[in-house]
Amino acid sequence: MALRLGAIIEALGGDLQGDPGLSIERLAPLATAGGDAIAFLSHPKYQKELAASGAACVIVAPAMHDAAAARGAFIETPDPYLYFARLTQLWKKVHARPETARIHPSAVIDPEAVVDPSARIGALCVIERGARIGADTVLKSRVTVSEDCIIGARCLLHPGVVIGADGFGLAPHEGAWVKIEQLGAVRIGDDVEIGANTCIDRGALGDTVIEDGVKLDNLIQIGHNVRIGKHTAMAGCTAVAGSATIGAHCTFGGRAGVLGHLTIADHVNISSTSLVTRSIHKPGLYTGVFPIDDNATWEKNAATLKQLHSLRERLKALEKMTMQDKKS
Amino acid sequence: MALRLGAIIEALGGDLQGDPGLSIERLAPLATAGGDAIAFLSHPKYQKELAASGAACVIVAPAMHDAAAARGAFIETPDPYLYFARLTQLWKKVHARPETARIHPSAVIDPEAVVDPSARIGALCVIERGARIGADTVLKSRVTVSEDCIIGARCLLHPGVVIGADGFGLAPHEGAWVKIEQLGAVRIGDDVEIGANTCIDRGALGDTVIEDGVKLDNLIQIGHNVRIGKHTAMAGCTAVAGSATIGAHCTFGGRAGVLGHLTIADHVNISSTSLVTRSIHKPGLYTGVFPIDDNATWEKNAATLKQLHSLRERLKALEKMTMQDKKS
Amino acid sequence: MALRLGAIIEALGGDLQGDPGLSIERLAPLATAGGDAIAFLSHPKYQKELAASGAACVIVAPAMHDAAAARGAFIETPDPYLYFARLTQLWKKVHARPETARIHPSAVIDPEAVVDPSARIGALCVIERGARIGADTVLKSRVTVSEDCIIGARCLLHPGVVIGADGFGLAPHEGAWVKIEQLGAVRIGDDVEIGANTCIDRGALGDTVIEDGVKLDNLIQIGHNVRIGKHTAMAGCTAVAGSATIGAHCTFGGRAGVLGHLTIADHVNISSTSLVTRSIHKPGLYTGVFPIDDNATWEKNAATLKQLHSLRERLKALEKMTMQDKKS
Repeated sequence: MALRLGAIIEALGGDLQGDPGLSIERLAPLATAGGDAIAFLSHPKYQKELAASGAACVIVAPAMHDAAAARGAFIETPDPYLYFARLTQLWKKVHARPETARIHPSAVIDPEAVVDPSARIGALCVIERGARIGADTVLKSRVTVSEDCIIGARCLLHPGVVIGADGFGLAPHEGAWVKIEQLGAVRIGDDVEIGANTCIDRGALGDTVIEDGVKLDNLIQIGHNVRIGKHTAMAGCTAVAGSATIGAHCTFGGRAGVLGHLTIADHVNISSTSLVTRSIHKPGLYTGVFPIDDNATWEKNAATLKQLHSLRERLKALEKMTMQDKKS
Repeated sequence: MALRLGAIIEALGGDLQGDPGLSIERLAPLATAGGDAIAFLSHPKYQKELAASGAACVIVAPAMHDAAAARGAFIETPDPYLYFARLTQLWKKVHARPETARIHPSAVIDPEAVVDPSARIGALCVIERGARIGADTVLKSRVTVSEDCIIGARCLLHPGVVIGADGFGLAPHEGAWVKIEQLGAVRIGDDVEIGANTCIDRGALGDTVIEDGVKLDNLIQIGHNVRIGKHTAMAGCTAVAGSATIGAHCTFGGRAGVLGHLTIADHVNISSTSLVTRSIHKPGLYTGVFPIDDNATWEKNAATLKQLHSLRERLKALEKMTMQDKKS
Repeated sequence: MALRLGAIIEALGGDLQGDPGLSIERLAPLATAGGDAIAFLSHPKYQKELAASGAACVIVAPAMHDAAAARGAFIETPDPYLYFARLTQLWKKVHARPETARIHPSAVIDPEAVVDPSARIGALCVIERGARIGADTVLKSRVTVSEDCIIGARCLLHPGVVIGADGFGLAPHEGAWVKIEQLGAVRIGDDVEIGANTCIDRGALGDTVIEDGVKLDNLIQIGHNVRIGKHTAMAGCTAVAGSATIGAHCTFGGRAGVLGHLTIADHVNISSTSLVTRSIHKPGLYTGVFPIDDNATWEKNAATLKQLHSLRERLKALEKMTMQDKKS
């Protein structure tokens, strides 16, 4: 099922230089695209790949006009990456196979749950009593939405997602743990995407809140009472401990962590694997990762690290001694 | 469905100063509680919040008697946090909606599994041949308990839990891996809680053992042959490699790790994200985390870290030189 | 159901010194094996355990011949660990209970999916349109294989596995995220094992590829467009970001991480928890982990670490000063 360049322009706009009748068979990366494919140039640093690319058509920014023209057909647009994103959506829509039932017959939906008639519930999902699923929201297979949890409109939940398991609340008593029942729920806004096997716990007293436009990758853990602000994105395996409050427009690299009860401002970027151990009040990029090295070098440096404080003391002593020598 | 203060005292004890007829509509945090809510003061450092709180009633320790009395109704009890935990349990019990079937009809239970008649098995659970589920244990939706695995009494397993997948056992042979079949099972004691999408692997020869009262949060990985002692608690995303033996009454912060075949004593506390790389024989708090910083500072420090051992050597040389100068 | 030593030798080879009629009731670790058990000695360092072992029979390498003979019955074989692995397979086969249906009736298999007649699909699995499952492959319970994903022959997928959820592809636009539809799929080779709740995302344009003989433990995240070479093994909770290319015969300790778009050569070993932040072109063992310590010591060292770069500058200044003193 090919798509002509003219049809792409008609749907998405952009300024085409080339034959609108040209037939596109696939979307491909610039480096490997063949004569049946459309590709895009996201960054000027790939300009060399542009010249070498065999793509039928390339999506470029105005600054690349001349380089693209020297090569063949192209679509000019202010933000090629965004254009490409919309092209994937167009491609998926055009190639969509006929959908079957909106509610898969194997899904287990409590009679006291409310599912918008436009929502789509996949095979073997569980939607418990009091849960609500908004308009045009899609639950892929094997998603659990627990009692009283609310999912907004146009959300996409991937297989294995668990919304509203109990938060981890325990009071110590005579060497054992007494459970704190988790009386809150989870409230998820509109346009939220949640990756496979990700878990969002219900609140202890109030609700755990995921605001509009948040994007969570796979295998993420969100503790009870957490609030994540609008349009924040977290890559896979990130973990946020209970009662953390995270701002809007933040990004988290994969495997990042946030301790409980912290506050993170808007527009904060946390590098992969870093653990946030204190509240962050200023936008910016923050990192805390032990640099990888060949194992022998790491062993020497890691062993020395355990004496780092005493090294500093020795340095201090030496400085003092040298200064005294200078004076005397 | 409100609860009068008198009914709370009747169920949980404690010394009420105030009107037993006062109606409580909700449980709330001290800082946000309104005139229809009961709250608790866990620590004297929140005393300022106590004075400012609009709660109808506050649960406090005897040391807070005067401060609480100055404000309004209160319940005095030696351990307010424990009292609060029990109050959440009372609240949940009073507000429980009528339960439906003990065994959800969509659950897949092997005829050779043994499920106590008082256990509750949620939608789309799988209980395989030879598995046993104890009295009053609850499996929420989509839990798998594999062949021959045993779950004790009063356990709570959250959605997506996998008990008894194969441990990761491989013998190298001519550049490929030969599977070591995992012939053991998993044995879980009484009063164990296991969070969403957590996995506990079956043993290679013997069993993986989780003792009474252990509490595991979400997305935790427990390798084969591991033993976890009584009342140990692990926060989300912790991973324990095969054949580790962990004592009783330990706590693990989220994202902690334990290498294989290690032994950890009773009453050991591991900080979030730390990797235990050697056996720990003494109780105490242990930590190993790279401190987070703004990215530019981290880059400078991380780069220097790779020369740490040689810095030490340079410091040593300088010390020697300075000492010689002193002598001469 | 016991197995005579003679039957073991008949099935697996090896040189038996002892009574072939001896009945083996179980496989056990050397240290705890009783008179009804067979055990193995993987490494000469356990020779003391060999002498003390009560095992009915021990599997040893030729170098251990004398030590084993001094104790009782033994099987001599060049690679005892490999022999043991095969013995677990024999044991499982002999003790296998009669299998029920190849396709569990609760599995949801799209009519446009292709499942080899010799494959085995467990309870509550979901196999979507266009997916293909190869010969003798086993899906345990609650596995999802999404649209158009391909699983080879003799694979084993544990409960909760999700193959082919969308990769995490987003284009920023006016403070929000525009979804990049994931148009590729996942292709998994032969003899691949995938642990419980592990996720492998579909590619953005091309496919995510897992080559023959790869072994993945539980709760692993494989991002879109990743390629993992033959016979690479990854322990639990490892995370590989999008478009990373990982060589053959690599090993990853648990909780390891790989940033996106990196390349890792064949025969690279990554230690547990380490984050790979740059491409690795040479075989070898690589590590990057903050050493764990008692918390008080860690606090001092971690605090000093934040001044590490300035310590180096101070050391440099001191060196210069001392050298000048020498000269003058």
